[in-house]
Amino acid sequence: MGSSIPRIAVDAMGGDLGPSVVVPGAVQAAREAGLALSLVGREDEVRAELSKLDASGLDVAVVHAPDVAGMDEKPSDILRRKKDSSIHTACRLVKDGAADGVVSAGNSGATVACGMFILGRIPGISRPALASVMPTAKKPMVLIDVGANVDSKPKHLFQFGLMAEVLAQSVLGMAKPRVGLLSIGEEEGKGNTMVKEAYDLLRASKLNFVGNVEGRDVFTGDVDVVVCDGFVGNVALKLSEGLAATMGQVLKRELLRHFWGRMGALLARGALRRFKKVTDYAEYGGAPLLGLTGIVVVCHGASNPKAIKNAVKMAGSFVQGKASEDLARKLAAHGQLAPEPPAAQAS
Amino acid sequence: MGSSIPRIAVDAMGGDLGPSVVVPGAVQAAREAGLALSLVGREDEVRAELSKLDASGLDVAVVHAPDVAGMDEKPSDILRRKKDSSIHTACRLVKDGAADGVVSAGNSGATVACGMFILGRIPGISRPALASVMPTAKKPMVLIDVGANVDSKPKHLFQFGLMAEVLAQSVLGMAKPRVGLLSIGEEEGKGNTMVKEAYDLLRASKLNFVGNVEGRDVFTGDVDVVVCDGFVGNVALKLSEGLAATMGQVLKRELLRHFWGRMGALLARGALRRFKKVTDYAEYGGAPLLGLTGIVVVCHGASNPKAIKNAVKMAGSFVQGKASEDLARKLAAHGQLAPEPPAAQAS
Repeated sequence: MGSSIPRIAVDAMGGDLGPSVVVPGAVQAAREAGLALSLVGREDEVRAELSKLDASGLDVAVVHAPDVAGMDEKPSDILRRKKDSSIHTACRLVKDGAADGVVSAGNSGATVACGMFILGRIPGISRPALASVMPTAKKPMVLIDVGANVDSKPKHLFQFGLMAEVLAQSVLGMAKPRVGLLSIGEEEGKGNTMVKEAYDLLRASKLNFVGNVEGRDVFTGDVDVVVCDGFVGNVALKLSEGLAATMGQVLKRELLRHFWGRMGALLARGALRRFKKVTDYAEYGGAPLLGLTGIVVVCHGASNPKAIKNAVKMAGSFVQGKASEDLARKLAAHGQLAPEPPAAQAS
Repeated sequence: MGSSIPRIAVDAMGGDLGPSVVVPGAVQAAREAGLALSLVGREDEVRAELSKLDASGLDVAVVHAPDVAGMDEKPSDILRRKKDSSIHTACRLVKDGAADGVVSAGNSGATVACGMFILGRIPGISRPALASVMPTAKKPMVLIDVGANVDSKPKHLFQFGLMAEVLAQSVLGMAKPRVGLLSIGEEEGKGNTMVKEAYDLLRASKLNFVGNVEGRDVFTGDVDVVVCDGFVGNVALKLSEGLAATMGQVLKRELLRHFWGRMGALLARGALRRFKKVTDYAEYGGAPLLGLTGIVVVCHGASNPKAIKNAVKMAGSFVQGKASEDLARKLAAHGQLAPEPPAAQAS
């Protein structure tokens, strides 16, 4: 971390298409945002992609890592046995001070495991959580956790709310973000056992807790943070991406079906392009993994170069904003990291 | 059930706007599909709405029920203490043979409770489940459970799969529906504890089980049935509705912003109308509550008359197709209602 230019360790082997997508996206981010890169992966493959690009004037190092974390491999196996994998190596670079942040589109469970055990957690945080910044009808909101954990406990959901509040304050510039708990009815007492207990913890906190929100409230822009278990959040995130893509396809199909639709689409192409931009997950890049003593941004396996670019830029701005230190300080100041359940709650 | 015309008991007080939405929707369904109606609710309010409509030649009875099940009331309270509520009365009409099916846009928990305890379950079924027929890029698919249960057990998810297979065969005409389990990764072993155990039960069954599917796979049309816990399914359903509505608003906003967009929208209005139709939940009406010895269709609280109409027509076609008897017979023939977990599975 000697230089003042943030250096991002990019898992060049991550993602469905590996270096051919990751390297161009990362280089573009380095150019646009003035970042230094350590591209981590099989050196020959990474250099082959790099040679196709103009990286002149950029500070791009290639760090050889012969192993790759397969998408189907167990995270704990990669953590313990694949120490020469690109994700393991990238996290060690940050741990050793040779880089300032990690970006990976690879096996996200492995990224969470390596981030958690190589970089370590912020004191008091039980589990890191993936936060996704998502578009709404009004302004972006934060959905947390979108898949770092399954089988979460109420206390974890409570901590996700605290971490996302800080993210919304720091990154989205919201003074007092409205925090909602994702459930299946707005009234208190709706939901499953875990959500009902998390409700009590959140209500007793200093957060601007607005109570339960339903799936349909996520995209209205009336709530700034939506807290949920990582299983539910991951389903919600991928469902949203899938539905947005399907709706885009249906719109295109219907427009192309008849002459007047094609003419209309031609005239309205500016509007259709803006529509696509608002609903394109690639605009949002990656999901920061919150709760670690270091910056880790997780990307979609199907990321295109634009998504990688935006994720690397996000990591760079998090490093510059000292987001991890800021989160640790604010969480410590919060003084509520380990809540006791309110006494004698009737379920 | 003396007559050959199906008679649907409609909870006229259900839904956010009650009789003013429910009565016109139900009457329209009766006219289009040749159904008889029993409109259940406060007689004066129901008759006031009825008097605004042309119901000539239709067999429409009004059954007085002075109480209303509030949206915030606990289902068990309504079941035990509000026996004069419209939903309780509507279920009793079916139980007593005075009607053939129930449609309600009211408190869905109360509808599930009244359906389960007044009509009763099909032998061997532990819990009824709400099945939602949803649009995809190709053809409709069935998402089950969308909210009848929370904190489901693996065995329940297994039974949801069996019930949805029969629904997809009977209603969507699919010979051997592809059944997927909603999880957060396609590989076996991905998911939370409940999903991993349900995976083993589904894999060992006679279903055409295609394994785990992710949120993004729901709308591609490559799977015909998606099984999940009611909490996850309810979030998914409402999220989809919310996102579809938000995307429609964004599209409209962008089209209206500039002259060429407005001209384009005018030329392409046929295509835009078809787009809206595909993505409009009201086209699909209601969700059948499967696993009961009777037909119950649950509608969205925010249903418009078109959604009510389609739900009542769905109930009518289920009665005519003897869907409950068909389901009970096929489940009995399946011979696998109470599966034993496969021996010695490593988690």
